[in-house]
Amino acid sequence: MRAEIISIGTEILLADIQDTNSRFIASNLPALGIDLYYMHQIGDNLGRLQELIATAMDRSDLVLCTGGLGPTEDDITREAIAAAVGEEPTIVPELEANLRAFFKRRGYPMPEKNVKQATVIPSGEAIPNPRGTAPGWWVEKDGTILVAMPGPPAEMTGMWDNEVAPRLRERSTGTIIVSRTLKTIGIGEGTVDDTVGPLLTSTNPTIGVYAKRDGVHLRVTAKANTKAEASALIQPAEDRIRELFGSAVWGADDDTLQASVGALLKQQGLTIAVMESCTGGLLASTLTDVPGSSEYFKGGLVTYSEATKRQYGVPAHVIEQYGVVSEETAAAMATAVRSELGADIGVGVTGVAGPDPHGGQPVGTTIIALESPAGTASANYVFAQTREVIKARAVTTALLLVRRAALGELSP
Amino acid sequence: MRAEIISIGTEILLADIQDTNSRFIASNLPALGIDLYYMHQIGDNLGRLQELIATAMDRSDLVLCTGGLGPTEDDITREAIAAAVGEEPTIVPELEANLRAFFKRRGYPMPEKNVKQATVIPSGEAIPNPRGTAPGWWVEKDGTILVAMPGPPAEMTGMWDNEVAPRLRERSTGTIIVSRTLKTIGIGEGTVDDTVGPLLTSTNPTIGVYAKRDGVHLRVTAKANTKAEASALIQPAEDRIRELFGSAVWGADDDTLQASVGALLKQQGLTIAVMESCTGGLLASTLTDVPGSSEYFKGGLVTYSEATKRQYGVPAHVIEQYGVVSEETAAAMATAVRSELGADIGVGVTGVAGPDPHGGQPVGTTIIALESPAGTASANYVFAQTREVIKARAVTTALLLVRRAALGELSP
Repeated sequence: MRAEIISIGTEILLADIQDTNSRFIASNLPALGIDLYYMHQIGDNLGRLQELIATAMDRSDLVLCTGGLGPTEDDITREAIAAAVGEEPTIVPELEANLRAFFKRRGYPMPEKNVKQATVIPSGEAIPNPRGTAPGWWVEKDGTILVAMPGPPAEMTGMWDNEVAPRLRERSTGTIIVSRTLKTIGIGEGTVDDTVGPLLTSTNPTIGVYAKRDGVHLRVTAKANTKAEASALIQPAEDRIRELFGSAVWGADDDTLQASVGALLKQQGLTIAVMESCTGGLLASTLTDVPGSSEYFKGGLVTYSEATKRQYGVPAHVIEQYGVVSEETAAAMATAVRSELGADIGVGVTGVAGPDPHGGQPVGTTIIALESPAGTASANYVFAQTREVIKARAVTTALLLVRRAALGELSP
Repeated sequence: MRAEIISIGTEILLADIQDTNSRFIASNLPALGIDLYYMHQIGDNLGRLQELIATAMDRSDLVLCTGGLGPTEDDITREAIAAAVGEEPTIVPELEANLRAFFKRRGYPMPEKNVKQATVIPSGEAIPNPRGTAPGWWVEKDGTILVAMPGPPAEMTGMWDNEVAPRLRERSTGTIIVSRTLKTIGIGEGTVDDTVGPLLTSTNPTIGVYAKRDGVHLRVTAKANTKAEASALIQPAEDRIRELFGSAVWGADDDTLQASVGALLKQQGLTIAVMESCTGGLLASTLTDVPGSSEYFKGGLVTYSEATKRQYGVPAHVIEQYGVVSEETAAAMATAVRSELGADIGVGVTGVAGPDPHGGQPVGTTIIALESPAGTASANYVFAQTREVIKARAVTTALLLVRRAALGELSP
């Protein structure tokens, strides 16, 4: 079943609100065996909406609309659907009675313009909306299903869960889609692509490669009649990916890098402490985003000045000789914080977050050093970006080094 | 000028990511006098994308695309545009040289498939992208402008601000819309609403009141033929709002609370140091998100354990007597870090980020204390939410206390 989603409301086009309804609906379609081909956001314009609905009904099996079911003149979804299918909305006495009762319960008389919320077209029927005044519409015409739901997220999700999803589950072909995301780090997108090579031509499961802030993700997606069958299709591809990328695969689905690194540290019985300059505390904050991180996180020192670095054990002569943004200073920071806080692993981060060059190094220079009983590691790169992105990338790189240390991949 | 936006990527249709690019672009169009008629999200499918681009170019004056400019086989935006306008992409030697240089700077050889990022069509030209490997495309064909930008938000917004928006500003004509947002803190939405009162009925400019995480915002929006005329309409409303709310207005438009607080500290010649427990370094990281923060930020200590708190000067008897999550311990943390790092203002944050209660206090308990030569301040509340939200709210509250200290609103 091919679907498209239409979110209706000029406030979306004016960027007054983010359209979150589309993503909610989209996230629920794969498990129903429905393929989503398009999402659209359109304003409260009768002609354009009518045309888009007609096009969508013509090319898709299922059209899911949200918004524009209110009582005001701006709310034109019912009119647009009626025009698209060439029918006239008429008042349904039962709906009108429900509507009047709804207002009565709230202690208001019903404004007369609300009566349009009690209309429906011959090809359609109303979908109950216990959370608001606007019933939805379920329309079937020439083999296409069109569903119109209200825009307020609480009303829409309630109607989806209680009415729309159950009916679609009965109607859809039975083929469902299950996805599994494997997350790698330390390998570029192009290299991942080249390495998975022939797997990319597979049609079931399909494999997609996506560059993300925490590394490159591979998404394996299978279609099958049951969840178990889909999982059976995914498993060999997952095994092959794990074989190809080995320990570069750090997690799956909703795992975060910090949680994965934290679990490794806990498993190995290792503790960690960090001394940060350019990341300004973001590495410590990210490590402690993990519930239970107090078991392995000994503490963090944000040494934003040379004086503070010296205060916590970075030798003045190292800073003088090599500069504050240098491999040597980063290594001395790792050594110092490890000793200062009595941790197994010490990490030092120094660099230039911008906006101006510092210590003779350009903006984006990041130097990370790690010291542990099993050996040392470091990373050194220039990534000229915004301050926020420079910091985030430094944290990801630091976590990558910590991961290697916890995996025992370092040599002394 | 009529525009539509096309966001490209199967991961959007799979609800893997929220398309935030569309809203960013949409929010920038009113000031350029450009009317947005449609936004679409579509997958990595050549045929469907080509058809949508052709339709959009046919009915609109401006088509703004994001995504699908990467080097992989899934990245089909260039191919779809070329097919839609009936042209062939060819390699531009200068772009290829830039691309190879980009990889060389990062210390990798360029994978050969990346060369497609150095192509362009005869009706198009490349748009520089200093933040990534994918240049954009600016295409003009049969009176329609098509712009293709990369999908990663940092690359897209950089290209928009530096290249695309300035060029569109030259090309567009008509009535423009200008907005000005004034940000307040420490006053509830209802009170703000009541205080602005009669201003809310104005039609040009209009005024809207919005509750946000960093306080209540007032948005003043004017329509005019030029930016200067719009600004002249906005100015009296802004003056009146500033008069009504005084020092509760901490910033405007894109100002952040941390930048506003930082500017105040600099102006007052005050320095700050922080000792954090439940926020785990997020307060230090947020303070140092501000360029130039090294002028007033002396450093941060992330004391996630009782032992580390004691190590940096929190008296053991205070923790024992009052508990680690107490007003007394927070105050002792502020005193300790102020002395330890020699700062004018010391801030201590302790609390329970969850998932389990700690120190006899429920999840969401947050206690913040500030010590300064001009006096002390504290905040103490329970906000049972996710770990992330608990941390973010604690940071906002700490910044509010620092702001009061820098404004001289504390009493000794």
